[in-house]
Amino acid sequence: MKRGMEQRHFDTELLELKEKLLLLAAKAEDIVDRAIEALRNRNQDMAEQVLSLDKEADRLEMEIEEETISLMARHQPAAVDLRFLVGVLKINNDLERIGDHGVNIAQSALRLNSQPEVKPLIDIPRMSEEAVGMLRDSIDSFVANDPDKARRVCRRDDRVDALKDQIFRELLTHMMEKPEIITRAMELILVSRNLERVADLATNICEETIYIAEAKVIKHHADGR
Amino acid sequence: MKRGMEQRHFDTELLELKEKLLLLAAKAEDIVDRAIEALRNRNQDMAEQVLSLDKEADRLEMEIEEETISLMARHQPAAVDLRFLVGVLKINNDLERIGDHGVNIAQSALRLNSQPEVKPLIDIPRMSEEAVGMLRDSIDSFVANDPDKARRVCRRDDRVDALKDQIFRELLTHMMEKPEIITRAMELILVSRNLERVADLATNICEETIYIAEAKVIKHHADGR
Repeated sequence: MKRGMEQRHFDTELLELKEKLLLLAAKAEDIVDRAIEALRNRNQDMAEQVLSLDKEADRLEMEIEEETISLMARHQPAAVDLRFLVGVLKINNDLERIGDHGVNIAQSALRLNSQPEVKPLIDIPRMSEEAVGMLRDSIDSFVANDPDKARRVCRRDDRVDALKDQIFRELLTHMMEKPEIITRAMELILVSRNLERVADLATNICEETIYIAEAKVIKHHADGR
Repeated sequence: MKRGMEQRHFDTELLELKEKLLLLAAKAEDIVDRAIEALRNRNQDMAEQVLSLDKEADRLEMEIEEETISLMARHQPAAVDLRFLVGVLKINNDLERIGDHGVNIAQSALRLNSQPEVKPLIDIPRMSEEAVGMLRDSIDSFVANDPDKARRVCRRDDRVDALKDQIFRELLTHMMEKPEIITRAMELILVSRNLERVADLATNICEETIYIAEAKVIKHHADGR
């Protein structure tokens, strides 16, 4: 359908778009990592850094969206490429929202760091590692167009949920024993909910990857192969 | 650019798509309303209804997404219509997520209804009315392509946030006085967070409406009237 040169041009632009999306994914990871560091090490500067990193992520998200729409308009891609580009739009949006959850955590850190520590944090950093690991691998599965990998990543959501429940139960016990820590414990519960959402959004990215990959398979099938 | 008949066909399909999106919006409203009713009246049946309504909403969301992509592929719309269709995809996604928040609330209701009541709910139903009102008006502003209305809806988010803070403070006080209600009070706090997210998603819909409308204005400008 498309002439060779136009096709090559389109492929180059697709590649550039993918790279920009990877840049945003790296930024989203960084935001969550630093937010948790700010919380664990009671580091106000790092919490502030998160807020400015998120502004960069927001700008990048808008750029990616505009470029994706422009690509759609100029190249009028067929159904499969279009599906891929819609996938980019959705993942782009998921990554931006992960940044927002990082900001929520940084804001909790800013509030908590001015008060006495409830207890050294162990499960929250572990939960964060799991969630950020899922994010990283969800992006890898998207880049590799690997639905099996994506399915494996999805299954790890259970571990994150189990950690969330454990954190909740433990903090609940603390709160009942020492009502004066309720406000701070609530803040930590909210942090764990934000991490849960990061893992959910990584799951979204995996589902999008599976959808794109299998739509291709179905499409290939319909083409008589 | 387009021949008349093709254009008319495209317009008809756009209209049908818009109607389907309105159907999903109505379902999302219904889900949140019933979830809050289930909570307020301790009604298990209604909570169960929410779960099946959400399944319908999920199916509708997938249908809308597929039809939007198919429309893009077949009609290869110009930048402005494309921007509108991308807006439909995003709003579609926002509405599906509102349904998910309704499900979270219904699940809280299911857990709370088996335990003694903390206190009669007043602020949570008020917060829900505000959030669902924002959702309804955000959709109206989208349908009317009215960025001014969308801006007014966005501003109401402050009221929802104020209610959320009030609910939080009040429940915190209860928890400190009666540690035995902590689990139930936490559940109510989570309900209010879900309502906050419904209002945020209505704000997203408004921002999308503003973006589509102003992009059109800029575009018209560039066309020299």
